[in-house]
Amino acid sequence: MADKKKRRRAAADSDSDSDTLQFKSKLKPDSNILQILKTLKSSAANTAASEKPRPLSELNLATACREVADLPLSSVQSTIESLALSLAHSILSGNGFSFSVPSRAAANQLYVPELDRIVLKDKSSIRPFANVSSVRKSTITTRIIQLIHQLCLKNIHVTKRDLFYTDVKLFQDQSHSDAILDDVSCILGCTRSSLNVVAAEKGVVVGRLIFSDNGDMIDCTKMGMGGKAIPPNIDRVGDMQSDALFILLVEKDAAYMRLAEDRFYNRFPCIIVTAKGQPDVATRLFLRKMKMELKLPVLALVDSDPYGLKILSVYGCGSKNMSYDSANLTTPDIKWLGVRPSDLDKYNIPEQCRLPMTEQDLKTGRDLLEEDFVKKNPGWVEELNLMVKSKQKAEIQALSSFGFQYLTEVYLPLKLQQQDWL
Amino acid sequence: MADKKKRRRAAADSDSDSDTLQFKSKLKPDSNILQILKTLKSSAANTAASEKPRPLSELNLATACREVADLPLSSVQSTIESLALSLAHSILSGNGFSFSVPSRAAANQLYVPELDRIVLKDKSSIRPFANVSSVRKSTITTRIIQLIHQLCLKNIHVTKRDLFYTDVKLFQDQSHSDAILDDVSCILGCTRSSLNVVAAEKGVVVGRLIFSDNGDMIDCTKMGMGGKAIPPNIDRVGDMQSDALFILLVEKDAAYMRLAEDRFYNRFPCIIVTAKGQPDVATRLFLRKMKMELKLPVLALVDSDPYGLKILSVYGCGSKNMSYDSANLTTPDIKWLGVRPSDLDKYNIPEQCRLPMTEQDLKTGRDLLEEDFVKKNPGWVEELNLMVKSKQKAEIQALSSFGFQYLTEVYLPLKLQQQDWL
Repeated sequence: MADKKKRRRAAADSDSDSDTLQFKSKLKPDSNILQILKTLKSSAANTAASEKPRPLSELNLATACREVADLPLSSVQSTIESLALSLAHSILSGNGFSFSVPSRAAANQLYVPELDRIVLKDKSSIRPFANVSSVRKSTITTRIIQLIHQLCLKNIHVTKRDLFYTDVKLFQDQSHSDAILDDVSCILGCTRSSLNVVAAEKGVVVGRLIFSDNGDMIDCTKMGMGGKAIPPNIDRVGDMQSDALFILLVEKDAAYMRLAEDRFYNRFPCIIVTAKGQPDVATRLFLRKMKMELKLPVLALVDSDPYGLKILSVYGCGSKNMSYDSANLTTPDIKWLGVRPSDLDKYNIPEQCRLPMTEQDLKTGRDLLEEDFVKKNPGWVEELNLMVKSKQKAEIQALSSFGFQYLTEVYLPLKLQQQDWL
Repeated sequence: MADKKKRRRAAADSDSDSDTLQFKSKLKPDSNILQILKTLKSSAANTAASEKPRPLSELNLATACREVADLPLSSVQSTIESLALSLAHSILSGNGFSFSVPSRAAANQLYVPELDRIVLKDKSSIRPFANVSSVRKSTITTRIIQLIHQLCLKNIHVTKRDLFYTDVKLFQDQSHSDAILDDVSCILGCTRSSLNVVAAEKGVVVGRLIFSDNGDMIDCTKMGMGGKAIPPNIDRVGDMQSDALFILLVEKDAAYMRLAEDRFYNRFPCIIVTAKGQPDVATRLFLRKMKMELKLPVLALVDSDPYGLKILSVYGCGSKNMSYDSANLTTPDIKWLGVRPSDLDKYNIPEQCRLPMTEQDLKTGRDLLEEDFVKKNPGWVEELNLMVKSKQKAEIQALSSFGFQYLTEVYLPLKLQQQDWL
């Protein structure tokens, strides 16, 4: 036994070189760090209370903007029925029929600093049926609306792919039915999830969270290492309860696994969530719901490259493609915890674990510097400038060069202790 | 209310065209179908009992073959320590050191019909340290073995990416450390999961299954629509219990969602599992464990294209890349339930929902016809011939052309009733 212990110590020492020790020695007792997190949580809760989501109408913006709402199925159904009635009236009065479709083009998008997200301006176009150039699109629009009406009656969820396959002859290509599905969201003024059309699930969640999924109570501390798959249909998620102090948003699967296996959420009460790369709609909706209902701060752990920050921004401010629904898809006030460009030198990440940025990386980085949601955060601009200047990037996994558990045992605790988020 | 009901009926009728009705009318009461499934289950259990997994040694094959075993961590540790001792002896006796590495080349692979899977023949090569051409590989091999030894001592799991980042200077590229990790599995004679190196998780499971994940009991009937993420580390999965009659293996996420939302497993007691596309190691191990412990028949629902059958074959017979571990990764006796090429005409899948096969598709299809694991199943050969001849493919989602719930309400029940699997 003593022999075994000695061997364990020897192994532990072997990956504790001077760098690891240098940072480990800075760590204070967990109770100090927990105190910091409690302060963070209550300030997040206060901000949430004072910062009532402001409706667009109150902002007095120079340009009129449009947003969609999360509607219950019965409202979607009656909205469709009213629309059908008005179209029928128009036809009967000899005017044929047409849809008024909000434009989702880049020129019709606006970043609103007060809201910290992208919204849609109010430009729309008329899509008449009796016109050679728009007859196909207006037919598809009508068919999609009819299919959505069926989903309302049956109260089931389907994927975009299912929708496409119900009328391949008309839709021809899934990109056509997908695009018009977004149009239909805008026409009806409701979110895509309200239409009961869901995306494939990708995300997982583990840690101090209890919630109901389709009527089943899920305790995410009892989900082993695999975690709970995030449900594709947010409208069947509810009853969120948690004693967590923060939400840790992780970009990559590998880092998530390390945190789940080490049960990081037991040492520092938190909820750990990942979309395994690009954020999908289900994970974005789930993160927002957690933030809103539990009023917890969100700290993000992403790769130190332009895509890491871009992913953070999609969670935070929305993607351009779905800006009409940004109010429901975005999570305000996400903090950039790491891995930040300045961490590379600060934590002595070895040269060989850093990667040179490609031309494309650099271009993406420079483009991000022009984005409003980056500009409004001077700390982010500084970090991004450093990244573009040093031309170096690094993955979260680069921390493994100091030992497999460096992430959970040194890096993250130290970051939390030093309140080192932006 | 009556009005609402009428509206519902009208909507239901609208997607019940003559085709749907034609097949719906063939459906017998669920009790009949359940009886068929019970018979299927008991015959699968009997087969499992009589078909004790035969060790390679008993088969008297003309060529010697090699397999790796699932070893407990302590055995991996002691195997590494013995290996280190023997290398030290070799060095001290003035012979330097070298590894004997089993070859994983295609020429060293063999399909064994008695086992119905691919195994590795016994060719190996010597990898000496004191040789310019192999010094790098033998150094990497030594380092990987040392890192695995650390994992044994700490009893933690890491990803291949983590492993790579512990010594980027030496490994240079992840493909180098990945390849040698497989070599190390073969050298130590154990599975990659025994080495505590896991792949990212991708699969989900829902339905009549209870199991423990890292000490937590998981009830997969209480996982809502999202299901439970399949854990990356199979060695922490255990205590499987189930009252299911079969396992339904689904290729795609969309079909899985339909089945989960409709709680298909409550109408026909089953366990529904998907890897969302290409089978990953964790899902393959999990499926095998379910099949072995619960002795349930496995029915596969895949796209009607060469990749659907290929995916089925990876679950069933293994991939060439990891043939050394085929005994632990493969699930014997998977039945091809659908969507099969013959279903396209049988179920009148509309022409516009079928897609023309590309040249690459046709080549993959013809290549599959040459594979031993296809040849041994005459029914599969016939279906595959039909596919290649008709040059048509179709996704599971094509069934949505008869209504969103056609899959769960008509197609699958009818398939089960008619025992229409191969």
